[in-house]
Amino acid sequence: MRRRPITHITVGGTPLTRLDTLAGEEPLEIRVGHAGQVRKPLAVTMRTPGDELDLALGYLFTEGIIRQPQDVQSAMLCSGEPGENTFNVVDVVLAPNVSLPDVIAEGKVAASPRTVTSACGVCGKASIDAIRTRSAYDLTGDPVTVSPATLAALPERLALAQRGFTRTGGSHAAALFSADGELIAAREDVGRHNAVDKLVGRELREGRVPLAGRVLLLSGRAGFELVQKAWMAGVSVVAAVGAPSTLAADLAAEAGMTLVGFLRPPSMNVYTGGHRISAG
Amino acid sequence: MRRRPITHITVGGTPLTRLDTLAGEEPLEIRVGHAGQVRKPLAVTMRTPGDELDLALGYLFTEGIIRQPQDVQSAMLCSGEPGENTFNVVDVVLAPNVSLPDVIAEGKVAASPRTVTSACGVCGKASIDAIRTRSAYDLTGDPVTVSPATLAALPERLALAQRGFTRTGGSHAAALFSADGELIAAREDVGRHNAVDKLVGRELREGRVPLAGRVLLLSGRAGFELVQKAWMAGVSVVAAVGAPSTLAADLAAEAGMTLVGFLRPPSMNVYTGGHRISAG
Repeated sequence: MRRRPITHITVGGTPLTRLDTLAGEEPLEIRVGHAGQVRKPLAVTMRTPGDELDLALGYLFTEGIIRQPQDVQSAMLCSGEPGENTFNVVDVVLAPNVSLPDVIAEGKVAASPRTVTSACGVCGKASIDAIRTRSAYDLTGDPVTVSPATLAALPERLALAQRGFTRTGGSHAAALFSADGELIAAREDVGRHNAVDKLVGRELREGRVPLAGRVLLLSGRAGFELVQKAWMAGVSVVAAVGAPSTLAADLAAEAGMTLVGFLRPPSMNVYTGGHRISAG
Repeated sequence: MRRRPITHITVGGTPLTRLDTLAGEEPLEIRVGHAGQVRKPLAVTMRTPGDELDLALGYLFTEGIIRQPQDVQSAMLCSGEPGENTFNVVDVVLAPNVSLPDVIAEGKVAASPRTVTSACGVCGKASIDAIRTRSAYDLTGDPVTVSPATLAALPERLALAQRGFTRTGGSHAAALFSADGELIAAREDVGRHNAVDKLVGRELREGRVPLAGRVLLLSGRAGFELVQKAWMAGVSVVAAVGAPSTLAADLAAEAGMTLVGFLRPPSMNVYTGGHRISAG
């Protein structure tokens, strides 16, 4: 976040100049390789500075490149340019038994930093098939249930936890709750995928993945890639303040995930997995 | 868009099952090459089906790969799998004098589908420098001015034009207006960059780029990459309903662009280029 002078104008009123706080945004490059090798760039994401190691871990995990915390030997936040204090590179050393992502191993042109998507062909059905193959978790067995009243209380709890969001209005947020509505962690970022990756990376580091029994709250819309990340992390209940897309709902159905959208208390829409929403 | 059954729940009320319309989402692969060569994948983006050729043209233009409509010899929407009716690939043949993007020409691993970002190093300052080098347009000379009352009227005009948005709530929108508030075109997409690319691609096709004297309205937040695309297209006034990020405001300042955020009638914040906002 940074403060800068802005002019606040109201139609017909006198313009007022004041200091305003903006959400920070900087590129982050994630480099991966094995010990003793040159690490190569895998992805560049525009993100809000902070929690970079969690972001990198969460990204590698939700894209299926690592399966457990031990798959990373070391991860280091470092400067992009020698002598410059930019800290916009995460250098990840994979454990010797972990394969490099295909795009790096084969020296191929990567069509996308979302490695699952780039590998999966070019139709929605193929995208869903690719994720089914990669995900280690079967969500259908998660017996967790959540009540509508608990779900309806989550956006307010997230808002209370979100100082940055309330100050800048420029961040997307993601939060993890227990099934009875207790906040476990919240993250925010100018990139909606990054907020989820930071959350998943933190839980992975703490040894709490798969995230069975948890509810993932998204402050915005639920697109395909966010539902993909939730499935990869083993979350069986996803609730979004905004709308899901067709492909997100299809993927949630395929995963056996409960997908709630338009969570705008006191009401909400249930798109898939309604059996986990308890009565009352 | 597609209709599917959902359950609408209100806390304490009776769940109602009804049909709901969701925003369509499918991957689109953009392949480029020269005539007589195999076209190679440059980017995969999750997008709302529709206007695929404009999306591809706009993407190539705002990423600095093409400079004018004549740089594309042909662009064809085709199926990803032989015999399948997926239509999720755009095959672009570049004119012989147009260079292939670096990531394809050198067979390098692309760190990102946003080629400008991937080529530009890893700090915000370097990202801004890279775009200054690539942009063909100097915005500082655009004498256009817009009144606060005109700006305040834009979100309502966009909403009227947006049947898809009002039906699904799941799309981002971008619209181009004249300086006196006349709607020129509006596009919506599950990906906010895609809505801008579709708009720019359409204008490019019609020979109306650079978009000097125009106002670009964004339904959401103004991040770095959206301001980048606006600069590349020669737009000197960008107005967003949501917040800008620090780097977006820095880039707008560097470009000589007028950047308005939190456009929530009757008020708005002016972040850069206030000289283009007329009194009253």
